[in-house]
Amino acid sequence: MSFSPLIRQLIDALRILPGVGQKTAQRMALQLLERDRSGGLRLAQALTRAMEGVGYCRQCRTLSEDGLCPQCSDPRRDDALLCVVEGPMDVFAVEQTGYRGRYFVLKGHLSPLDGLGPEAIGIPELEERIARGTFAEVILATNPTVEGEATAHYIAQMLAPRGLTVSRIAHGVPLGGELEMVDGGTLAHAMAGRRPIGL
Amino acid sequence: MSFSPLIRQLIDALRILPGVGQKTAQRMALQLLERDRSGGLRLAQALTRAMEGVGYCRQCRTLSEDGLCPQCSDPRRDDALLCVVEGPMDVFAVEQTGYRGRYFVLKGHLSPLDGLGPEAIGIPELEERIARGTFAEVILATNPTVEGEATAHYIAQMLAPRGLTVSRIAHGVPLGGELEMVDGGTLAHAMAGRRPIGL
Repeated sequence: MSFSPLIRQLIDALRILPGVGQKTAQRMALQLLERDRSGGLRLAQALTRAMEGVGYCRQCRTLSEDGLCPQCSDPRRDDALLCVVEGPMDVFAVEQTGYRGRYFVLKGHLSPLDGLGPEAIGIPELEERIARGTFAEVILATNPTVEGEATAHYIAQMLAPRGLTVSRIAHGVPLGGELEMVDGGTLAHAMAGRRPIGL
Repeated sequence: MSFSPLIRQLIDALRILPGVGQKTAQRMALQLLERDRSGGLRLAQALTRAMEGVGYCRQCRTLSEDGLCPQCSDPRRDDALLCVVEGPMDVFAVEQTGYRGRYFVLKGHLSPLDGLGPEAIGIPELEERIARGTFAEVILATNPTVEGEATAHYIAQMLAPRGLTVSRIAHGVPLGGELEMVDGGTLAHAMAGRRPIGL
């Protein structure tokens, strides 16, 4: 091996980052060492603080170092709307749409083969949150995968007796693509979900 | 913004890594927070140790926390061979070829437009190293770019009076590709550098 021990340890440690293999880790380590040591130290500090300080919001269960996350503590948001997502990254994605209601973050999706039932992903806590809240509509924004659909279906059934509106985000053709590139299942959803054009 | 301050700071800090943009940094931060906090802390520690502890080898000038790097301190390597490269990453690349001589690491290549002359990239130190050493051959393994070629040419001229063999790594077609995909300049080098097949 041609790297000294500290550099080798840094390269190994960088490989825990998603999408970073041996070659990328080498390039990252040497670039930090040669060009940006103070940036490397800042990164080390930010990592330590976040790993030790960040917990979960007690209300929506997204990642946050405060007991209540920015979305839950904002008094200007709509308390009649609840959006259910699979993870903290999805909160960020939905925020970009301009949605300004509340959130509930599951721990992933139902996956019986992996032993992940309703308790494991936090469905009881979701039920409790809805019982405590004043929601008129629950938007199920789990992923458009088989497991995400099954999870949405399960939650919809569970909420049926409560008399609130339970909705699912629309499936259809994404913007900016070409129709011939869209798979048949998506296109079938887009056809079934067609809407009259208001002129 | 939908992330709490510590998470936002971590995302910003991750963006100093080469090739990491906003989206990748978000994915890295959330993955570490959700799945591998101890790995994140190990990475923070490895970063701190490396940024504070790694210096340069006093002989070949590659990155190393010891005064002499593993290559310079290994007594079994060939003291008659010196390989000159542009940076520490290139040492690693050349090591993979099975080369077991010594190294000298420049700080990049000559680039008069950026104000990088011979002093800036360490040519005087290279001259000194060669004067002190017992080299019979100096292999110029700078990059096959215009600047790398110019740097190799400059060093070859400087070393001409010393009566050592000065060689340049071969240019030619890389293994595993197809001839029609190789650029004309490379193919011209491959033709000019053709060798009789020993049967």
